[in-house]
Amino acid sequence: MTSILIIGAGRSTPSLIHYLLQHASVLDLHITVADMNLQLAQEKVHQHPRAHAIAFDISNETQRLELIQQHDFIISMLPAHMHLPIAQACVRYSKHLATASYVSKEMQALHTEAEQKGVLLLNECGLDPGIDHASAMQVIDAIKAQGGKITMFKSYCGGLVAPESNDNPWGYKFSWNPRNVVLAGQSTAQYLLNGQLTFIPYNRLFLQTETIQTDTHGAFDAYANRDSLSYQNSYGLLHVKTLLRGTLRQKGYCKAWHVLVKLGLTDDTFVIKHANTLTYSQLVQSFLPIKSGAVKENLKTWLGTLWDAEIEHQFDYLELLTSKPILKTEGTPAELLQALLEEKWLLKADDKDMIVMQHQFEYALNEKTKRLSSSLVVIGNDAEHTAMAKTVGLPLAIAIKLVLQKKFTRVGVQIPVTPDIYEPLLTELDSLGIRFTEKTH
Amino acid sequence: MTSILIIGAGRSTPSLIHYLLQHASVLDLHITVADMNLQLAQEKVHQHPRAHAIAFDISNETQRLELIQQHDFIISMLPAHMHLPIAQACVRYSKHLATASYVSKEMQALHTEAEQKGVLLLNECGLDPGIDHASAMQVIDAIKAQGGKITMFKSYCGGLVAPESNDNPWGYKFSWNPRNVVLAGQSTAQYLLNGQLTFIPYNRLFLQTETIQTDTHGAFDAYANRDSLSYQNSYGLLHVKTLLRGTLRQKGYCKAWHVLVKLGLTDDTFVIKHANTLTYSQLVQSFLPIKSGAVKENLKTWLGTLWDAEIEHQFDYLELLTSKPILKTEGTPAELLQALLEEKWLLKADDKDMIVMQHQFEYALNEKTKRLSSSLVVIGNDAEHTAMAKTVGLPLAIAIKLVLQKKFTRVGVQIPVTPDIYEPLLTELDSLGIRFTEKTH
Repeated sequence: MTSILIIGAGRSTPSLIHYLLQHASVLDLHITVADMNLQLAQEKVHQHPRAHAIAFDISNETQRLELIQQHDFIISMLPAHMHLPIAQACVRYSKHLATASYVSKEMQALHTEAEQKGVLLLNECGLDPGIDHASAMQVIDAIKAQGGKITMFKSYCGGLVAPESNDNPWGYKFSWNPRNVVLAGQSTAQYLLNGQLTFIPYNRLFLQTETIQTDTHGAFDAYANRDSLSYQNSYGLLHVKTLLRGTLRQKGYCKAWHVLVKLGLTDDTFVIKHANTLTYSQLVQSFLPIKSGAVKENLKTWLGTLWDAEIEHQFDYLELLTSKPILKTEGTPAELLQALLEEKWLLKADDKDMIVMQHQFEYALNEKTKRLSSSLVVIGNDAEHTAMAKTVGLPLAIAIKLVLQKKFTRVGVQIPVTPDIYEPLLTELDSLGIRFTEKTH
Repeated sequence: MTSILIIGAGRSTPSLIHYLLQHASVLDLHITVADMNLQLAQEKVHQHPRAHAIAFDISNETQRLELIQQHDFIISMLPAHMHLPIAQACVRYSKHLATASYVSKEMQALHTEAEQKGVLLLNECGLDPGIDHASAMQVIDAIKAQGGKITMFKSYCGGLVAPESNDNPWGYKFSWNPRNVVLAGQSTAQYLLNGQLTFIPYNRLFLQTETIQTDTHGAFDAYANRDSLSYQNSYGLLHVKTLLRGTLRQKGYCKAWHVLVKLGLTDDTFVIKHANTLTYSQLVQSFLPIKSGAVKENLKTWLGTLWDAEIEHQFDYLELLTSKPILKTEGTPAELLQALLEEKWLLKADDKDMIVMQHQFEYALNEKTKRLSSSLVVIGNDAEHTAMAKTVGLPLAIAIKLVLQKKFTRVGVQIPVTPDIYEPLLTELDSLGIRFTEKTH
């Protein structure tokens, strides 16, 4: 029997746990789901005979080490900055680890020791990063195998709300960590455009957007992601002139979000004390350089041509310009904004979310320029069984199966960019309805 | 004999060391000047019989502890983030400490233990913070003593270049740490304006400036400092409706600096690799959303009405839009910009710098509204004996004398806001030519 420990039972875990429970008999698994919140963990295991739930505090070192020692394979679904002590214990006790997070420098530093001990530290095996790597590398390797030279690679992904549940003027509801959405993009984006190094600082990231067309779901706004340049090495894109990764949002979201950035409402560096003595309109007013009139008039005057009826509708929807009271006693502007958005952008029980991913390639083959796009749309079932939970959790679950079946045998720090993992992973995702559509132009 | 250890022999230290050497016989002092760079330390002590210079590496714990144990009074002139291990050792070995830096949370945490041991940890005793505290509190206490209620307090300070040495279109040269100038303002400024909480995020800090008039040196631009609100408590300003601290720059500096911020050139969060393969115009071009023409034309088109002949002149002066090569092999945009500015804004050997400080008060007394301003201008002698070095170093040196003479006897974490220190301090500064001019309106 293989004992699996899943640390964290939050929003991204239902599909992961469900898949492993489904395969528990065949693979002879016992699954422990551990979370700070015992009830949350219990809900996820559904009294399955091969699973149990426990209360677990990651900061309790004794419990952390004991638990890791008692299991064969660890999956950390905690926020990325919390993986390190788990990974260190995994190496120490020779246990495999899987996460859906980017490889940090500290994680990478464990590679040699993990490799020597035959321990796998599989990371970036969710949606983005995860499915993006696997699906892009499958196309890249296929183009290279034909003798093609890739000159352009653009890759976009967005966790959105499905059209049938899209009932607010922002076209957005939270299907994952709201804090990450509020703080998104707070560093300079870097990419290559026609051979030119290109930077976009945060102050205009949501203004300098592109429009991305899909065949089935219309057009989206895309803003550039943090560091696209690093993909030149990790994807082996030697000849690339354009290299860009971006995040998708519904049309109109970015220009309204830019107003929040310009105001300063996404700032997370200082705390406003006694915030609960303020209303949201007073908060907005405190950031406006024009103080003379009513807050909406001041905002409108200040924004000039940036203001339009759509933004008015979006701000009205949030009640940002009303005397709605702030409830938190204190918080950074970003935290006070987040509290409001969590109320307004709640994914309701029957709401469906949507994942859209699109890769665009341009390559030279036989002295001709070829274009290819590869697109994925996944719609969630409801607010629990989200497209986000499926696309983050299933790649992890499948990867674990591949390791247990000894179909994927690499050790050390790994990400899913090689055929031994992406081929079986994408095949099984396809059979589960997570399917890319390729198109040549 | 009292042995004094001065850690750090940089730009801000000549006046401090000079004053202490001058008073060494009378006060029976021996002075050790310690710096990473032995030559720098030696230059400062001028082979004075009561002083010696040593090479010192702050990261060498053994040497640090030994040195602190061997002296009676420690002055740390290192950057603010390096004071803590020194302060901890001072408390441990019961040695007084003085710095010109803001009290950090970690420093404040040492208060009770220091107080119990009779150890003084004097901070914020330079120019800003330092002379600003002393001079403002002298006025505030005097107004209160008359029964006045202060409703407005604005305080401005700038380390500038003197008019006679002002030969570049930015009106600026470095008289202190260039890195701090490049990164200035990278958080949201907070202040009170007519009773309203007001915030300015970094993206428009250098755009929303005020004009400050002086009687003797014309007008300056002022941009708001980080957190003015904290001064309500520390200065006891119970009735204040407007509370603002700002930094002064020559007219025209801020709107040009805003362009650098808007471009993204002050970003310090990511490293540009192989930077020495780029020219400065390529660097600027990489931040521009318009790529079609020559860099200056692109910048002009992008900036629209923000562009003017003065900004063109300022950018031309920096050679930012030319094929001037970047010399650093890698660096953040802020570091690459700093390298250029250090060349262009060098305070030459005969150049004089200038300190301008102005406090503005409005207060109610006998049912009348009164206005008072208090201004200071200090001109440096040359690039070594700067106004900055005088105004940072002399308050520290004088404070140390007051402690040794037992005229200032407080212990624990202290800043110069009480009459027992500000009265003798300001009196002696006045005798040294550092003199405020008061004016009622």
